[in-house]
Amino acid sequence: MKIYRGNILFTPTPEQFTVLERGYVIVGDDGNIIKTCQDLPADCKDAEVVDFGDQLVMPAMNDLHVHAPQYRNLGIAMDMELLPWLNTYTFPEESKYKDLKYAERMYRRFVHDLWKLGTMRAAIFATIHPDATCLLTDLLHEAGMGGMVGLVGMDRNGPATLSNTVEEAVEGTKRVMEHTKDMPLVSAIVTPRFVPSCTPRMMTALGLLANEYNLPVQSHLSENQSEIAWVAELEPESTCYGDAYRRYGMFGQTPTLMAHCCYTDGEEFELMRKNHVFAVHCPTSNCNLGSGIAPIRRFLSAGIPVALGSDVSGGSGFSIFRVMHYTLQMAKMQWVRTDHKDQFLSLSEAFWLATKSGGSFFGKVGSFEPGYAFDALVVDDSDLNFDNYTIQHRLERYIYLGDDRQLTHRFCQGKEIAAPRISGLVG
Amino acid sequence: MKIYRGNILFTPTPEQFTVLERGYVIVGDDGNIIKTCQDLPADCKDAEVVDFGDQLVMPAMNDLHVHAPQYRNLGIAMDMELLPWLNTYTFPEESKYKDLKYAERMYRRFVHDLWKLGTMRAAIFATIHPDATCLLTDLLHEAGMGGMVGLVGMDRNGPATLSNTVEEAVEGTKRVMEHTKDMPLVSAIVTPRFVPSCTPRMMTALGLLANEYNLPVQSHLSENQSEIAWVAELEPESTCYGDAYRRYGMFGQTPTLMAHCCYTDGEEFELMRKNHVFAVHCPTSNCNLGSGIAPIRRFLSAGIPVALGSDVSGGSGFSIFRVMHYTLQMAKMQWVRTDHKDQFLSLSEAFWLATKSGGSFFGKVGSFEPGYAFDALVVDDSDLNFDNYTIQHRLERYIYLGDDRQLTHRFCQGKEIAAPRISGLVG
Repeated sequence: MKIYRGNILFTPTPEQFTVLERGYVIVGDDGNIIKTCQDLPADCKDAEVVDFGDQLVMPAMNDLHVHAPQYRNLGIAMDMELLPWLNTYTFPEESKYKDLKYAERMYRRFVHDLWKLGTMRAAIFATIHPDATCLLTDLLHEAGMGGMVGLVGMDRNGPATLSNTVEEAVEGTKRVMEHTKDMPLVSAIVTPRFVPSCTPRMMTALGLLANEYNLPVQSHLSENQSEIAWVAELEPESTCYGDAYRRYGMFGQTPTLMAHCCYTDGEEFELMRKNHVFAVHCPTSNCNLGSGIAPIRRFLSAGIPVALGSDVSGGSGFSIFRVMHYTLQMAKMQWVRTDHKDQFLSLSEAFWLATKSGGSFFGKVGSFEPGYAFDALVVDDSDLNFDNYTIQHRLERYIYLGDDRQLTHRFCQGKEIAAPRISGLVG
Repeated sequence: MKIYRGNILFTPTPEQFTVLERGYVIVGDDGNIIKTCQDLPADCKDAEVVDFGDQLVMPAMNDLHVHAPQYRNLGIAMDMELLPWLNTYTFPEESKYKDLKYAERMYRRFVHDLWKLGTMRAAIFATIHPDATCLLTDLLHEAGMGGMVGLVGMDRNGPATLSNTVEEAVEGTKRVMEHTKDMPLVSAIVTPRFVPSCTPRMMTALGLLANEYNLPVQSHLSENQSEIAWVAELEPESTCYGDAYRRYGMFGQTPTLMAHCCYTDGEEFELMRKNHVFAVHCPTSNCNLGSGIAPIRRFLSAGIPVALGSDVSGGSGFSIFRVMHYTLQMAKMQWVRTDHKDQFLSLSEAFWLATKSGGSFFGKVGSFEPGYAFDALVVDDSDLNFDNYTIQHRLERYIYLGDDRQLTHRFCQGKEIAAPRISGLVG
């Protein structure tokens, strides 16, 4: 058992924060929370307490959509919309991950930067390359961080250097499953890149794989108007883009993440709702690639699950706090666009999306309720708190103004996570 | 004469960067640039060179719209649109600046944070309080930074604690003029808050003042739809919001900054073009307050001058690099909204807006051409440049991923500017 003390904030529901000023979190030896409380229970009076003083203690961030092999392109190549951007910048970069040395150098930095910005669990796109993809799972496991890692299937409309066969995609994904079977926090996820990259044979095979092993699925959906028009041409039998995944068993038949959903409406909206498909909101990327604004308020009102994603390198940074900031801003832009019909999101809603809602894809993750994994960040915001702000205002200021400098401790599943090494070999 | 060496980037025109790898900037004793060159001229061979090695050297940032007395509200109070936000959060906070001690404590931090994020010159809204406004000019002058500071006129629709009379606004502005007359880089600017805050008598008096002393003017324009509707009610004789300033001599009769301009169109657009009125683009604020997206591409195509503003605390940070980032993103959102009619802005255009275009309001500021003030930033981006990026990609990565940590030197008008003191008395 471990006991931590500090100014505790979390969101059991989207409507409001639970704030415990100088409260306690009691964590069991399995890394799960036993209790979060204002006063120490009588039977804990003699236990050792790790006291974080006036620091903020909150659930760690969950990034539900990120492309590890786009690490080098972070912060450059922002002058095109999605489809030309993929062909010009992204596919050539991802092709380099055939070289395991290159992959290790970049993937180490990737894992380090997730850690640095406070993300303890992520749903990650790797590449078509099985060796590099297994290496990425090793690096996450070695760091003590959590994640689902997808070997990408793509057998049409990409360069030869970044295409695999249906058999390679299926065998590669099975290899990642096998490779991660003893890693408690890292696992495989079925990852068709997106409909334009996958022939019906590829879609069929990956759908069967997901359903046979009850593996989760991640892909892209209705990100950009040109992409949607292209999917309509490529899949004339599908009634909408989402239906193209559904027909192949990859739209909620197993737990499913669909990134972007900027233009999801009508039948697709209804399918997501019925099938409990996650919309992964990636507002920084949607701004950088000129994709559009996802209707998050409408998703939430309908009960469609929503999580947040950095979508590096469409998104230009790893901070899910920054993504929260954009989530609030783009909800306001959506309010303008809908003539004030879609209401603003609140700070607690944005925080809940990044923590409990996104974390739910990994199990009981993202809250400080009993039974939840102790995934936590400790924030020393004394430089930002120069005038006795309330604890909730301190969190708000950290979201808008803070960065990695204020993060003093990071925990995943009850273990404090040290900075992952940037250089050196795995093991 | 001083000579500086490094990797030099600047934008003489919006279309492209001038990049001098390991080039030189030669600065005269007046702080103005004599020459920027790839090789050292023969007559300078024996001169001492300050060598910044592999660091980037670029023009400093100019912030053409920022509210100093909203410093404490930075990063909080983001749950309302403009008009209720003003009444609920902003006016009560600004009222506190009657207390000179409070003003000094906050204004010191304000000047420090401008400096910290690389802004060397700014057009600043103060409050109605003459003592505090003069103090702010002292602090800027003491720091060696440049700026125009406006005592705000507001005599209707505000709380009594934040209202002045026409006479107080005029005398207060004259006092700031007098107080700054020996400050080479700091001066007064006529500042009606916005039309809803100023009676026709106030507008008339401030317009006469501006024209009598040829003082520049700053205010707000067409930020939000409710505000525009209100102005139409308040000023039925004006043909548009901009016309309400024009009628009182404050729309280009002297150099004029109009912040926001999200909905400027038709006659107002034409008036801005004809009168060479600056549109100050504040995209972070426009997102935070749910105001809208300003049509920057259309302004630029028509020859309307455009600058960038942080609009703290509608904007949630002082970094004009961050504002550049949003400028690029919101241009893409505008591209979506106009069915791809308004084209993306380029990186060089955004940089030019923050440097040469914004700087032009202060004179020859914002470029490294001969005769321009040496306002400069030196950036050690070695932590971001782990893989031999091109110099232009290094700048792009700094804009998207960097912060104050990479800024190693800041210059204003040829002088290196040290960190302004946060505590202590003026003097």
